[in-house]
Amino acid sequence: MSGSCFGKIFKLSTFGESHGTAIGGVIDGIPAGFELDFEDIQHQLDRRKPGQSSISTQRKESDTVQFLSGIFENKTSGAPIGFIIPNKNQKSKDYEHLKDVFRPSHADFTYEKKYGIRDHNGGGRSSARETACRVVAGAIAQQFLASKGVSIVAYVDQVGSIKAVKSSSYTRSQVDANEVRCPDDSSAQKMIAFIKEIRKKGDTVGGSISCVICNVPAGLGEPVFDKLHAELGKALFSINAVKGVEFGSGFDCVSMLGSEHNDIFNEDSTTKTNKSGGIQGGISNGMPIEFRVAFKPVATLMQSQETIDKSGISVQLEGKGRHDPCVVPRAIPIIESMAALVILDALLIQNARNAF
Amino acid sequence: MSGSCFGKIFKLSTFGESHGTAIGGVIDGIPAGFELDFEDIQHQLDRRKPGQSSISTQRKESDTVQFLSGIFENKTSGAPIGFIIPNKNQKSKDYEHLKDVFRPSHADFTYEKKYGIRDHNGGGRSSARETACRVVAGAIAQQFLASKGVSIVAYVDQVGSIKAVKSSSYTRSQVDANEVRCPDDSSAQKMIAFIKEIRKKGDTVGGSISCVICNVPAGLGEPVFDKLHAELGKALFSINAVKGVEFGSGFDCVSMLGSEHNDIFNEDSTTKTNKSGGIQGGISNGMPIEFRVAFKPVATLMQSQETIDKSGISVQLEGKGRHDPCVVPRAIPIIESMAALVILDALLIQNARNAF
Amino acid sequence: MSGSCFGKIFKLSTFGESHGTAIGGVIDGIPAGFELDFEDIQHQLDRRKPGQSSISTQRKESDTVQFLSGIFENKTSGAPIGFIIPNKNQKSKDYEHLKDVFRPSHADFTYEKKYGIRDHNGGGRSSARETACRVVAGAIAQQFLASKGVSIVAYVDQVGSIKAVKSSSYTRSQVDANEVRCPDDSSAQKMIAFIKEIRKKGDTVGGSISCVICNVPAGLGEPVFDKLHAELGKALFSINAVKGVEFGSGFDCVSMLGSEHNDIFNEDSTTKTNKSGGIQGGISNGMPIEFRVAFKPVATLMQSQETIDKSGISVQLEGKGRHDPCVVPRAIPIIESMAALVILDALLIQNARNAF
Amino acid sequence: MSGSCFGKIFKLSTFGESHGTAIGGVIDGIPAGFELDFEDIQHQLDRRKPGQSSISTQRKESDTVQFLSGIFENKTSGAPIGFIIPNKNQKSKDYEHLKDVFRPSHADFTYEKKYGIRDHNGGGRSSARETACRVVAGAIAQQFLASKGVSIVAYVDQVGSIKAVKSSSYTRSQVDANEVRCPDDSSAQKMIAFIKEIRKKGDTVGGSISCVICNVPAGLGEPVFDKLHAELGKALFSINAVKGVEFGSGFDCVSMLGSEHNDIFNEDSTTKTNKSGGIQGGISNGMPIEFRVAFKPVATLMQSQETIDKSGISVQLEGKGRHDPCVVPRAIPIIESMAALVILDALLIQNARNAF
Repeated sequence: MSGSCFGKIFKLSTFGESHGTAIGGVIDGIPAGFELDFEDIQHQLDRRKPGQSSISTQRKESDTVQFLSGIFENKTSGAPIGFIIPNKNQKSKDYEHLKDVFRPSHADFTYEKKYGIRDHNGGGRSSARETACRVVAGAIAQQFLASKGVSIVAYVDQVGSIKAVKSSSYTRSQVDANEVRCPDDSSAQKMIAFIKEIRKKGDTVGGSISCVICNVPAGLGEPVFDKLHAELGKALFSINAVKGVEFGSGFDCVSMLGSEHNDIFNEDSTTKTNKSGGIQGGISNGMPIEFRVAFKPVATLMQSQETIDKSGISVQLEGKGRHDPCVVPRAIPIIESMAALVILDALLIQNARNAF
Repeated sequence: MSGSCFGKIFKLSTFGESHGTAIGGVIDGIPAGFELDFEDIQHQLDRRKPGQSSISTQRKESDTVQFLSGIFENKTSGAPIGFIIPNKNQKSKDYEHLKDVFRPSHADFTYEKKYGIRDHNGGGRSSARETACRVVAGAIAQQFLASKGVSIVAYVDQVGSIKAVKSSSYTRSQVDANEVRCPDDSSAQKMIAFIKEIRKKGDTVGGSISCVICNVPAGLGEPVFDKLHAELGKALFSINAVKGVEFGSGFDCVSMLGSEHNDIFNEDSTTKTNKSGGIQGGISNGMPIEFRVAFKPVATLMQSQETIDKSGISVQLEGKGRHDPCVVPRAIPIIESMAALVILDALLIQNARNAF
Repeated sequence: MSGSCFGKIFKLSTFGESHGTAIGGVIDGIPAGFELDFEDIQHQLDRRKPGQSSISTQRKESDTVQFLSGIFENKTSGAPIGFIIPNKNQKSKDYEHLKDVFRPSHADFTYEKKYGIRDHNGGGRSSARETACRVVAGAIAQQFLASKGVSIVAYVDQVGSIKAVKSSSYTRSQVDANEVRCPDDSSAQKMIAFIKEIRKKGDTVGGSISCVICNVPAGLGEPVFDKLHAELGKALFSINAVKGVEFGSGFDCVSMLGSEHNDIFNEDSTTKTNKSGGIQGGISNGMPIEFRVAFKPVATLMQSQETIDKSGISVQLEGKGRHDPCVVPRAIPIIESMAALVILDALLIQNARNAF
Repeated sequence: MSGSCFGKIFKLSTFGESHGTAIGGVIDGIPAGFELDFEDIQHQLDRRKPGQSSISTQRKESDTVQFLSGIFENKTSGAPIGFIIPNKNQKSKDYEHLKDVFRPSHADFTYEKKYGIRDHNGGGRSSARETACRVVAGAIAQQFLASKGVSIVAYVDQVGSIKAVKSSSYTRSQVDANEVRCPDDSSAQKMIAFIKEIRKKGDTVGGSISCVICNVPAGLGEPVFDKLHAELGKALFSINAVKGVEFGSGFDCVSMLGSEHNDIFNEDSTTKTNKSGGIQGGISNGMPIEFRVAFKPVATLMQSQETIDKSGISVQLEGKGRHDPCVVPRAIPIIESMAALVILDALLIQNARNAF
């Protein structure tokens, strides 16, 4: 109800501010007896962590996860998995000047309105730092899904106006082959150059990510309100800075005719095209689930901006701190994680009624 | 869990297939003592009902709602409001030929895979007929929200490649001034002509809808997973045929710089622009909430299509029945309803903790 | 949240007041393809209905359920099952005198305080009439559970001070052999005589019910907050007039020593005693689940009582209307139904994670 | 769904095994800006901690809570409060002999059946150690409720056959005046002597606790399934070792007549008696909420017991380790905590719809 829990059977509950002692969470509902790969979990966290490349923020955080419960001899015991990620590189003095100021297009003003009290250090709870907890749960969910054959690959398909060639068959190693996580290498080099250029100006830029989920069994997702892409939609919009989500043909469907858009069946019940994006009537059809997510440019600029303080007085906000010029490269594991949480939960729900 | 319930405090639970005795639902959690306007509820249902105009399906259904409980002397009593809408014009013989066939880009195949049993009449539970129940609940939610000053207006902004002039200040009477519910009348006339033209060919076309919610108090929506636009995103993707959702700047943000995208505050804490679409950090900021929704072209064509039957044998599917050539004009009240369910629920949740 | 929904995967949402047009509900989450026995459902409703015997209220209601959806060729289709039970014998004039009066130990005062508005006819939503909807869902749940070997038998074990011989092996036909539904016939005859006697005086009397659930597989129920008996406890306390619930040894355990109370295992992992009542650590152990429920005497007397009206003025309340002198005989199918809702839900939840 | 979360608006999610690194939890939904009293939280933990008196287990744990988030300048910030309680005095070697053995009337067998894997150290997740987390959340809830005038006092009313004089007006300092937490001192001394006596024999004994909640506003609790005492019932049955729960007149109501049992109103709408236990129709009526809870004797004996191992072979289990001879003195703060979680949640839910 208060927004810190996600999922129905496979559940994640998180806590933590960017500048507190630690962030963390509770993962509940994972089937028991599943052997965990801890290196893989840390690897996913490393893909998200700050300071990992020449185009990300230079803020360094090791983001080491400590598991506190729910694991017995390296296997899930069925009990909830509690974990923390200590905050190590917080510099609260970086935020002293923001105490009474509302930064443009941040959550400062809305948190103040909602709660009447606000932890101004590093954005507090509104900081994207909380997504590290999603990555922990998402890595575990992906390991379980992988054991059932399901794979999830997200990649950067656009930065600014630079568009990459799209494909449903990029691999994760192709994605990680460059800093911007765009597997179309020639576009990737342009993206990297552009990001460095706008960073020099103290500016930031938007980007978008495509994601492909393969081998999802047909039949997942619930009709009417809990359609599979509705749950994915919520999961994706819950990620900081996301402004748009589309499945399959997406917004392009608006200008299409039914005779162009329908996915005609092959005799093995696959479809010749995948405009549906792997979901029909809210339920997976066995084809790859494909979606695309738009991220706005980071709101924190290294430029001076006009804004207001708590009393509504106009003030000048100077650009300070260490921030990403473009959020999409580090957002890749977050997208994959949220997708995994939704698909695993749908699998468990379907299992509940079907496995008799 | 099974997908038929929506909301946390203001809750809707629905049932019903397109060709059963009736569809209906239970509305729970509306504050007690609120006087209902029954004509307005019926009016919203009429805006959704089939057969209402020259460009909608010619199937006629009166869609009259019967309330069974929860209302005492025309006011909400605090008890759940049960209601039914009898199905009147169902012609099951229209669907006999579909018994063993999977229509392309429908939910036939996925329901079969999910349940192992399928009511083939009119799409059964997967039919958009269930959205009439959403409109009943949505009309009540809108009445309550209106009593707090909140208004919701959706309009058609695109059909095929025909784009309307967008605006945040269209009124509902401007929207209803023409059959296609596009308040930019010159574009509307082109849309109507185009819909009639593709219908003649037995084809269908996609479209998109913009929606503006005014006077939402700042502070609604919950951080992290239950961000206000995440809940709206889920609500909108749960509507049949929706393939994309975007808020504020939406997908355009991808190619923008932070210095262009940030919404600079005025001294009264409104913002000079509204790229954020009225939501920052997942919480309403008091500006109009603006979003746009893409609908795919209706999958039922009045053309012959190749498809398969249950045994995977290729068959030819003839176009039969009475269907919409373009779904967006009738989808307007559904969009408004889902928006209202989310906003009212968020208002009640915020109230829970703040009204001390 | 508003109290009209029960269950997580197998879900019941109900509506309706005792004197409205109809009561009804939505049953969601039943596995698809399960063949329903409609006569059995009606039979369970008949066991609850008023006017069924010489010791129940003489108010006659046929309580015929009409199914509106979710059933295809007599089988569950996976879609939600909507149903209504029309109210037929309501006499609102019986309640005119209660409009401004708070009856002692009824919900009149508390509903008024909660909602500020109150449907005084027959208790409105607070009437036990709503339990008919639970019996519909419970009958379906019991049919499904029976197909997995699970059986549920409740019986009256006490009325006033008259106690019956308890047993874990009474059958439903033994229970239904007399009007009071106590399978110890000699005690039953005393109970019947006593109920008739106190009814003559316009008085009412309490009673208690024992329930035995056999063949529940070991492993159902969730640790910590959602223990199986915690869910059952909530389910049972949600039934009107219930003041106490105990499992296995129940309140007798207070004066026992651990050396007497522990259930020692047999080598087949059954236990020599069943003080645990079939549940250990909140999880079923395969032994019969046994519990007992205390019902207070019906608050409506056919005697004059002192009370107050809305303005706090002392008034004399005359006994009118048609009411049960003792509620337990008709409560038997309600207890069995709530038990079935909990056990089926627990079975589905366990299935979700275990059926890989 | 997996049993580790409690509450709807005020929510607690817990994790942790008795012999892991730490136990902990996430408290979500507390209104923002509320100043916390950390000493009081620790004091409540101290009332629950092992080794606190001559009649509790001699196992020493300091149970110091560390808050990780959700608190800003000693006030709740509106963000979830994450916390851990490190496990310090775990001696896993105490449990080596239990690895393949099922202890009688413990959760060993049922966890094995549920999960197919079991952390045998100290009972793992099934250990009552997890209740320390409930006490943290309960202490915070009680502080908030106290600021609205609500007070909660639980006391031991029976140990074995020794019954105390009951009263609705005992104070917490009277309760804490002796080791057994029974405010009727002469009974308390007998209880203490009896507990010491049975401990010498390596045995354990049951007990019961009464609880009184004062100044709850009328109108809390939701009709039908989520009645206030149904939610309390679930909360109480979720505590380890609870076998029975009764409200107001409880099981005594079975042998009462309606004319004795009805609570007659005074003109100020209080009632002359409180057989209802402060709740009518599932909704608080403003009178003290009174209930009683039965705890079974601790299953771990310092005696040799017959039992079986995993392969079903009969084995002799020796009494080892450090355990309580009677659980009720330490259960007092747990009862108070669970009551507080339910009442605060009900208050917030009522607030959601009523505070317009």
